[in-house]
Amino acid sequence: MLWGDVVTQVLIPGSALVGIGFALLQWLLVSRVKVSEDVNGYHDSLIENEDQEDGVDQLDAVIKCSEIQNAIAVGATSFLFTEYKYLSIFVGAFGAIIFLFLGSVKGFSTESEPCTYNPGNLCKPALANAVFSTVAFLLGAVTSVLSGFLGMKIATYANARTTLEARKGVGKAFIVAFRSGAVMGFLLAANGLLVLYVSINLFKIYYGDDWEGLYESITGYGLGGSSMALFGRVGGGIYTKAADVGADLVGKVEKNIPEDDPRNPAVIADNVGDNVGDIAGMGSDLFGSYAESSCAALFVASISSFGTSHDYSAMSYPLIISSMGIVICLITTLFATDLSEIKHVSEIEPSLKRQLLISTVLMTAGIAMVSFFALPTEFTMYNFGTDKVVKNWHLFFCVATGLWAGLVIGYTTEYYTSNAYSPVQDVADSCRTGAATNVIFGLALGYKSVIVPIFAIAIAIFVSFSLAAMYGIAMAALGMLSTIATGLAIDAYGPISDNAGGIAEMAGMSHKIRERTDALDAAGNTTAAIGKGFAIGSAALVSLALFGAFVSRAGITIVDVLTPKVFIGLIVGAMLPYWFSAMTMKSVGSAALKMVEEVRRQFNTIPGLMEGTAKPDYANCVKISTDASLREMIPPGALVMLTPLVAGTLFGVETLAGVLAGSLVSGVQVAISASNTGGAWDNAKKYIEAGASEHARTLGPKGSDAHKAAVIGDTIGDPLKDTSGPSLNILIKLMAVESLVFAPFFAAHGGLLFKLF
Amino acid sequence: MLWGDVVTQVLIPGSALVGIGFALLQWLLVSRVKVSEDVNGYHDSLIENEDQEDGVDQLDAVIKCSEIQNAIAVGATSFLFTEYKYLSIFVGAFGAIIFLFLGSVKGFSTESEPCTYNPGNLCKPALANAVFSTVAFLLGAVTSVLSGFLGMKIATYANARTTLEARKGVGKAFIVAFRSGAVMGFLLAANGLLVLYVSINLFKIYYGDDWEGLYESITGYGLGGSSMALFGRVGGGIYTKAADVGADLVGKVEKNIPEDDPRNPAVIADNVGDNVGDIAGMGSDLFGSYAESSCAALFVASISSFGTSHDYSAMSYPLIISSMGIVICLITTLFATDLSEIKHVSEIEPSLKRQLLISTVLMTAGIAMVSFFALPTEFTMYNFGTDKVVKNWHLFFCVATGLWAGLVIGYTTEYYTSNAYSPVQDVADSCRTGAATNVIFGLALGYKSVIVPIFAIAIAIFVSFSLAAMYGIAMAALGMLSTIATGLAIDAYGPISDNAGGIAEMAGMSHKIRERTDALDAAGNTTAAIGKGFAIGSAALVSLALFGAFVSRAGITIVDVLTPKVFIGLIVGAMLPYWFSAMTMKSVGSAALKMVEEVRRQFNTIPGLMEGTAKPDYANCVKISTDASLREMIPPGALVMLTPLVAGTLFGVETLAGVLAGSLVSGVQVAISASNTGGAWDNAKKYIEAGASEHARTLGPKGSDAHKAAVIGDTIGDPLKDTSGPSLNILIKLMAVESLVFAPFFAAHGGLLFKLF
Repeated sequence: MLWGDVVTQVLIPGSALVGIGFALLQWLLVSRVKVSEDVNGYHDSLIENEDQEDGVDQLDAVIKCSEIQNAIAVGATSFLFTEYKYLSIFVGAFGAIIFLFLGSVKGFSTESEPCTYNPGNLCKPALANAVFSTVAFLLGAVTSVLSGFLGMKIATYANARTTLEARKGVGKAFIVAFRSGAVMGFLLAANGLLVLYVSINLFKIYYGDDWEGLYESITGYGLGGSSMALFGRVGGGIYTKAADVGADLVGKVEKNIPEDDPRNPAVIADNVGDNVGDIAGMGSDLFGSYAESSCAALFVASISSFGTSHDYSAMSYPLIISSMGIVICLITTLFATDLSEIKHVSEIEPSLKRQLLISTVLMTAGIAMVSFFALPTEFTMYNFGTDKVVKNWHLFFCVATGLWAGLVIGYTTEYYTSNAYSPVQDVADSCRTGAATNVIFGLALGYKSVIVPIFAIAIAIFVSFSLAAMYGIAMAALGMLSTIATGLAIDAYGPISDNAGGIAEMAGMSHKIRERTDALDAAGNTTAAIGKGFAIGSAALVSLALFGAFVSRAGITIVDVLTPKVFIGLIVGAMLPYWFSAMTMKSVGSAALKMVEEVRRQFNTIPGLMEGTAKPDYANCVKISTDASLREMIPPGALVMLTPLVAGTLFGVETLAGVLAGSLVSGVQVAISASNTGGAWDNAKKYIEAGASEHARTLGPKGSDAHKAAVIGDTIGDPLKDTSGPSLNILIKLMAVESLVFAPFFAAHGGLLFKLF
Repeated sequence: MLWGDVVTQVLIPGSALVGIGFALLQWLLVSRVKVSEDVNGYHDSLIENEDQEDGVDQLDAVIKCSEIQNAIAVGATSFLFTEYKYLSIFVGAFGAIIFLFLGSVKGFSTESEPCTYNPGNLCKPALANAVFSTVAFLLGAVTSVLSGFLGMKIATYANARTTLEARKGVGKAFIVAFRSGAVMGFLLAANGLLVLYVSINLFKIYYGDDWEGLYESITGYGLGGSSMALFGRVGGGIYTKAADVGADLVGKVEKNIPEDDPRNPAVIADNVGDNVGDIAGMGSDLFGSYAESSCAALFVASISSFGTSHDYSAMSYPLIISSMGIVICLITTLFATDLSEIKHVSEIEPSLKRQLLISTVLMTAGIAMVSFFALPTEFTMYNFGTDKVVKNWHLFFCVATGLWAGLVIGYTTEYYTSNAYSPVQDVADSCRTGAATNVIFGLALGYKSVIVPIFAIAIAIFVSFSLAAMYGIAMAALGMLSTIATGLAIDAYGPISDNAGGIAEMAGMSHKIRERTDALDAAGNTTAAIGKGFAIGSAALVSLALFGAFVSRAGITIVDVLTPKVFIGLIVGAMLPYWFSAMTMKSVGSAALKMVEEVRRQFNTIPGLMEGTAKPDYANCVKISTDASLREMIPPGALVMLTPLVAGTLFGVETLAGVLAGSLVSGVQVAISASNTGGAWDNAKKYIEAGASEHARTLGPKGSDAHKAAVIGDTIGDPLKDTSGPSLNILIKLMAVESLVFAPFFAAHGGLLFKLF
């Protein structure tokens, strides 16, 4: 190891602060686009002026944009606050459960006890673990909520600005949308790192040299982060898709009015939904993955030679990797915003793809550097009861395979969901014979898109598992997430562009501008799918790492499939993603039906609505989405939160281990296929609408039979790609981290049912 | 044990012959319905004569029925023969592979060697295992093909007879359809048992006291059976659904003509498909499950105390259970055909359900009897390196939990796919808002329908695994399959009724008769789903038993999820069902598109076709289905057949064990959800068409928007429920049995890749 602890102590908070500073800078640049009555600045830089040609008053359009943006922001903020109100009850209750369960492990005794992995030393009492785990849980929950909330604020700040910039050309609009995404990406990455760093240093004041206890209690941070993400994803997902499906079913299918038409009463709810679901939900989700993989790595390290020899820099290796990631992503961002400019719509997707590639290549060098400087050349890692000798370049390969697996997943997802390639074009072509073939081809596409990502994940697992056991897996997960700032930037870009298109339509902007925002949006569907690919890929690795940490903590050394206890866990675990998806799909369906009724009612009872002379009652639709999502997120949430508790308490750690493995290997498939199928349908529809090729024109235009079939596919895909699919990665992660946190309890008191008989 | 080996030697072939005799008797009764110009017998027993009222000439209708039946039978026979021609090449090639791989284990040496599990004794050489495994494989393949072929022959014999009996009332028609199903069920169960029994006794002439070798080589029988089933299911499934989807897309959606209208050029291909896919495929599939679970049980028993102490009756316990099953099912059948009569359509489903219940209750007593009389009171079972003490009543519980788990699966499937209950009615209701909500609700229903069957399977696994290790699982599978004759009877009833409806439509029979055949058909959709539920449930148990046998034979004693080799196998294995489904779904989609083009072409180019004055070219459509299915069955077939060979040879037995476990726990979910979703959509459509309730009438009639949405769902469900879903249970079984057969090779030469590095 070539640098001292002082360097580490400076580097981590330093890069976190740099990340926050960079995010603020990006925000400043975005804020230069004025959304107010003062449009002088805008007139100066006006490049094209087709608006006047179309007879649309410029000032009027800007004011309208501002109004709509305001309505969306108010709706999103109000929903999130309502959601947080309910979540605070949950957090309080679950915090109490954590405290009571963990406190009861040694009967709330305040006496120090021999350490689990270092029985010669004395460790802090189990009660301390209960207290600090609860505190870490609360910190994780708050940070997760903050991440989602900040993302939403930025997105609702940027959407109208993107629309307005689209008047100057697609390149300018792209940069606004991308910068705003970057604000979110950097804030989230830096914030997550900083809170974790500060917490560890504060916890250390009490724990001192008891690193085993310190890093065990810090896992509560991951649990807090992911449990908020669960409700954010599920609640937000139901909100957005109830509105989206409801709006489409009446608007596009029955009334034949365009998407995002201001006459549609559900249109504001739909746009609010993009922000609370895709933005806030995704933010919490990826933050959760980040927090969990860091915690899993730190926990395993604490019971390995890093921990027993109290090597601070080596111990902080996961945090240093994340710090390096922030710096690398910062450089990468400049390539998209300053070093090149988009001049044509066809350059958008390649530019976003390039971001992934650049960050991956640069980060590989970054990892090599960190691995060389921050680690001793040889050390040992805990490997289910034995110690495994690991070298520093082994860890380089662990992190790097995770990183590159992420790139492979990203590129594969792009191939299967972008309408530039044959898979989506085939799906579009199948619309010729109607909605049924469209759905059959779309489902087949989703299933097929699983193959390459799974092989990529399997290779990453094999390499990192073989080289450094469970620590290797955790580091592979962190490797995949090391470029999270860039990943989130291109992901958040999607819903921002989607909103920008909606605002353009509602503000009555010209066809040309709508075309540009549509092109941004089509690329956004692909990047959203890529983001989901990253989320699920990293979730798979994270869950495995947490699973390994749980098994280590629970005191079992093998999980043998060939025992009844484990096997029933495995098969029931593999069923859970289906149970969970059934709940979320049905919730979206039912809420959408209610939305349809309300939208129909408004069209039937409000005179002049269809003609555009009367305004719809947006608030009622917002209320339907809000109520539905808050009510419907409880059963799936309960399923995820209670399963580990029930399985561990009643059936014991072996069965629970089976459940975790089963839900992991099954859930990852369902999640990937669901989100890619949905993304493909959405872009097949956009492919027909855009009519950019000879082939696409034979299927279109809007309103043709093939287009109608495509709209049906798109609607079916909505809950798949934005509700059930992305929630599944939280299912698998959350059950694993929850098991880890409660492991001491299960090890002490679990398996009641078998003890009884 | 209370009865001697002589009783066993008489009982097994005796009950097989009784089963065959009973099947022939049922066939005789069905053949009394005359389908020929000589309709005198019919006129005598005519109860209703609405045909004359409708102005349809009776004699003419009978002749037409006969013609159509003939066309269907010729088409099905010709397809199956073409298929068998290709399969014979495969069987020859794969037989050679088996011989070469297994022969190479000891370098084709002809010297006897120490037994694996009884190292003190001398066993036959590995070369003998190669020869006899190959012979058993061929026998299994031939029996499987025969099972499917006989089923098809009977079904095509019965379909027109069911139509003609429908003129006398729904009860008479039901009995003809059900009796014909029973012919197939009993022939198949008895035939499978008899061939296995005879083979064992013939093999014994060579093997003598080397039971370990004898029962190891007999596992080839299961492999032969299942590999034919794979191609039967996949090829037949693609055939039938290409025709069905193609016919519906043009006929029902574009041309607005009824299902099975004789003007539709694809209608004969569609009806042929029901027989080659649902009947022949299902027959081969369930025969495969039966053969495999018997082989798995026999193999494990041979290396347990039954085998080492050469206890013939105890060793034959699996066969005795099957013998008892034939007798019990015989009694059960009488309840449906002779002891009660259906008077109203609403009685059909309860009557079929009663069959399941009666056979289960009676069989429970039968199992108790066999377990008490044929087994010693205490013995030991091989349990991955150790011996487990088992009592005879333990085995009773193993078989009985399997049996009752089957009933639970059957009843759950019925609940989720019958339009008498709220799940399907909810799906039908969601058609109000169009096809998209129909699909969302249908998918959610399928996901939800997985929960109870998985818990039932998990409980059966836990009980039987805990009581008697892998032998217990195999016996639980056989328990579920012990009532296979009844299960197949009610399953085959479905496609026969479907065909009967088609013939009624094509022969221009009256509306009233069509209504009756439709009611039979709606119940048939449910029973088909129940049959698929049984097939997948038993496949799960069978695969686990085979998996255990494989692990035992491969010489590993644990399969630890927490090793990289196993875990990557697990996650890749869980992906295989998706890969496989992607192939089969896409195949159906592409073939259906070709069919659509051909049907459209005929409507456009044959003058008078739409008016009914000209005849379509049925043969061309048959050819399209045939070509598509033969071509498209190769890639999925190769995936299934090659995966164990590649995984075992390159990565070794641990990774292969992971693959088997992963594909099992993931595939069972995909299969159940796919077949129930498809069944529910089909019956939601029938619910709207039948308009039997106030609620249903608000959605209908035929041609309403809700009905159109329901037709789209039905079409999407076709490949799910009849191609990809049911093929998956063969995927999981076949990979397991193939691994078992090749286990000696993998144990000796596997894991090349790891050996190299």
